[in-house]
Amino acid sequence: MASVDLNSDMGEGFGPWKMGDDAAMLDIVSSANIACGWHAGDPIIMHRTAEIAKAKGVSIGAHPGFGDLWGFGRRVIRGDSMSDLEKQMAYQIGAMQACAALAGHKVTHVKTHGALGNMCNDDDEMALAVGRAIKAIDPALVYVTMPGLATERAAEKLGLPQALEVFADRTYEDNGQLTSRSKPGAVIHDAPMAAERVLRMVEDGAIVSTSGKIIKVKIDTICVHGDNPAAVAMARTVRDTLEKAGVTVKPFKVA
Amino acid sequence: MASVDLNSDMGEGFGPWKMGDDAAMLDIVSSANIACGWHAGDPIIMHRTAEIAKAKGVSIGAHPGFGDLWGFGRRVIRGDSMSDLEKQMAYQIGAMQACAALAGHKVTHVKTHGALGNMCNDDDEMALAVGRAIKAIDPALVYVTMPGLATERAAEKLGLPQALEVFADRTYEDNGQLTSRSKPGAVIHDAPMAAERVLRMVEDGAIVSTSGKIIKVKIDTICVHGDNPAAVAMARTVRDTLEKAGVTVKPFKVA
Amino acid sequence: MASVDLNSDMGEGFGPWKMGDDAAMLDIVSSANIACGWHAGDPIIMHRTAEIAKAKGVSIGAHPGFGDLWGFGRRVIRGDSMSDLEKQMAYQIGAMQACAALAGHKVTHVKTHGALGNMCNDDDEMALAVGRAIKAIDPALVYVTMPGLATERAAEKLGLPQALEVFADRTYEDNGQLTSRSKPGAVIHDAPMAAERVLRMVEDGAIVSTSGKIIKVKIDTICVHGDNPAAVAMARTVRDTLEKAGVTVKPFKVA
Amino acid sequence: MASVDLNSDMGEGFGPWKMGDDAAMLDIVSSANIACGWHAGDPIIMHRTAEIAKAKGVSIGAHPGFGDLWGFGRRVIRGDSMSDLEKQMAYQIGAMQACAALAGHKVTHVKTHGALGNMCNDDDEMALAVGRAIKAIDPALVYVTMPGLATERAAEKLGLPQALEVFADRTYEDNGQLTSRSKPGAVIHDAPMAAERVLRMVEDGAIVSTSGKIIKVKIDTICVHGDNPAAVAMARTVRDTLEKAGVTVKPFKVA
Repeated sequence: MASVDLNSDMGEGFGPWKMGDDAAMLDIVSSANIACGWHAGDPIIMHRTAEIAKAKGVSIGAHPGFGDLWGFGRRVIRGDSMSDLEKQMAYQIGAMQACAALAGHKVTHVKTHGALGNMCNDDDEMALAVGRAIKAIDPALVYVTMPGLATERAAEKLGLPQALEVFADRTYEDNGQLTSRSKPGAVIHDAPMAAERVLRMVEDGAIVSTSGKIIKVKIDTICVHGDNPAAVAMARTVRDTLEKAGVTVKPFKVA
Repeated sequence: MASVDLNSDMGEGFGPWKMGDDAAMLDIVSSANIACGWHAGDPIIMHRTAEIAKAKGVSIGAHPGFGDLWGFGRRVIRGDSMSDLEKQMAYQIGAMQACAALAGHKVTHVKTHGALGNMCNDDDEMALAVGRAIKAIDPALVYVTMPGLATERAAEKLGLPQALEVFADRTYEDNGQLTSRSKPGAVIHDAPMAAERVLRMVEDGAIVSTSGKIIKVKIDTICVHGDNPAAVAMARTVRDTLEKAGVTVKPFKVA
Repeated sequence: MASVDLNSDMGEGFGPWKMGDDAAMLDIVSSANIACGWHAGDPIIMHRTAEIAKAKGVSIGAHPGFGDLWGFGRRVIRGDSMSDLEKQMAYQIGAMQACAALAGHKVTHVKTHGALGNMCNDDDEMALAVGRAIKAIDPALVYVTMPGLATERAAEKLGLPQALEVFADRTYEDNGQLTSRSKPGAVIHDAPMAAERVLRMVEDGAIVSTSGKIIKVKIDTICVHGDNPAAVAMARTVRDTLEKAGVTVKPFKVA
Repeated sequence: MASVDLNSDMGEGFGPWKMGDDAAMLDIVSSANIACGWHAGDPIIMHRTAEIAKAKGVSIGAHPGFGDLWGFGRRVIRGDSMSDLEKQMAYQIGAMQACAALAGHKVTHVKTHGALGNMCNDDDEMALAVGRAIKAIDPALVYVTMPGLATERAAEKLGLPQALEVFADRTYEDNGQLTSRSKPGAVIHDAPMAAERVLRMVEDGAIVSTSGKIIKVKIDTICVHGDNPAAVAMARTVRDTLEKAGVTVKPFKVA
């Protein structure tokens, strides 16, 4: 029987500030990407998210980003050497591992956040720098990558285990890249439509571009969001639709 | 033959800013306490310091502090629960472990910094919170403690290995506590005098208070400083004096 | 006819994070204390809050706090000299003035936040340091103070205009100080009860302590909160109750 | 008799960390650009720098940058709207004005720092956003601009007073732009050579490009640096050479 992982970014509050409905999402997803304090998150939130994930059987990953709390890691920052980027990644992954250890859980994967994530999918050097940091810390950590893009190539080159990811609420171009958010139709707002697309991608092992082109890819995990009630509802619909069709939702790696 | 460790705080720059002469100190000490980015330090500096320490056979430790970069961790911050303090410690220790891994080195100890360090020596609850974080991450990590104070009690209670520390440039009260910096004679500025005192403490296994009281203590490590040229020269003198007297300077734990 | 000001802390989001219902509160209060980016707030939020306040005829003040974003300015921080505190206050007030200028509005008052605010009411030296910063920037700025406490004494000593403040949702001790939050009955949760108490304080020109002692004080402004829906509802009830009794709600100073 | 201003960036320490020899530079320059706490600087340093400048008759300016302390404002950050950039500039300028007021001095100009400065000289929208912030705060503030670039155009369009700046230690392309640092010969390291070039530029009212092209420009101020002893010596040589040739060094605007 087919199975797939559902992942979502979590732990994106900071100090007194909340973001997203992590409690609800931890009942829906099988993997949680936890912010590591640089673009969001703090030790208390990282620990608590890991603790709840542990209780619910959800696998956890480090979700490192640019050191830009104010900009939530969404601003492009240029100027760091690849060697410097490596260390920034190591720092965040290590911090997450220790907060997980304190919660009795264990980090199984790494997924980059926001502008850093986008840049890594475009830039082989950046994708490799992230990969080298992962490998130096623990070569068994899974690198969450995007099919056909720089992150997939980096994981392959470094011999790192990877989880190939597609998005539930985004459409794709003919080259397999996400349609830019600046173009109409880039984001899918209709939950049943998103869920049907996800099911098709999982069953067919393929992305279908906006022009109808079928791009065969391996799909290990589906990214869903939990920032607002509509996103949570969509994530729920995606899970229910998959399960009704007989697809098991489970982590791509268990701690 | 007698042996003792010499330790110093290092990696206390931040971004474009430098502090201390780490290169010189890494030729003098056997253990380096590396700032973890909260009161000083950053991933680049943490990694580089670990890398040089590795090359010189110097053991490294995480040196966590309050999240107060501007105040360099020297301001007293009150208001965190003990549970929250634990997570802050875990975060910093984990970040240091990962930067060390990237440098091919390994963290062997933890020593708290500045105001946090002082508070932990006064407050059993805080000392225990730090100890619990250490233990959850790796119960083989050595807790650097002060003889007769809360940190020593915490390490004992938790069953953690500890390295008892005395200061080369500070005097002691009859109760074994450091003379407050606000009192005259609290700090020793004369290098040969500091070195002779250290030698006596190591050979006698005792602190001598300012009133002449002899307090028998186990001494595993001597704290020296490297913030300015005079401090570096004093550290050099301490090491030379120990070695001339036949005391071996070596890490209390090797990675 | 009697009149009084209602004030509330606002602009307490940061970057992507929201806090409180400022839009609702700006329809209730006559003065807004805007966080200045050190414990909460940022230039975008400071500007926008000033802009809406301007449109609604609400006076604005700078609401400086400790540089502790993570702790939301609620942690006690000790170690700065009074001279250093002065500069920290100046920085925040000036930043607020410029964001207000960009919004076409003008800062009329200064009220300290959180742990800093509590410490200033207890400590004459701190209250004076804040007052000196205010005076150096603009001696016409109103210092929001608490009757009988260090802030009132500081404003008097420095010859600064002041607005004496009482709290709608807090009870008082016989010495005129707020009942510590650690004691039962310190905080009033019942909106009509809070509103009646406020009305009595305004009409009588007196605080009534928990033991029933009547302490005659000048009352210029009532502090209400907007952190959650219940707080907003209480603020609304306070305003309605005052107005029904013929008390005009208006700023203690208009820009 | 000809006159020109010499300006330098200052106040670039942070908390416990020092940078540059401001005391020496304040004896050489006539205008100081003071970092405002976002890429460097803090309220204590801002105040002290303003205080010494006041005592030495040096005019002061706000030197705002990206909110990137770790990267010292040298990393390119993209993603803020022009409206958001305006507020960030206002915040920093206002903070500087208040710290200056506390020191009895007054801000007369604004010069952007690092990556932000470079981007503003390339991008008319960014240069205008900075200009709008300046104008809203005080239309008499002088905008430090570069001849022929976006900042000059912005100041003209907004009707702001401007001070056109050339660099003592940089060479120019035929289009009047600085030679990119990535090209050989971009930076001049020889102090007498730099000083002679500056004298020629001031006397001729022209930049000479690396190919020998003469570009007539108005020159109000010469940027010199103080980050290291060689830079301080070059600045000293520039001033001495100008004065020996009968050029008066004085602020483009006195507070």
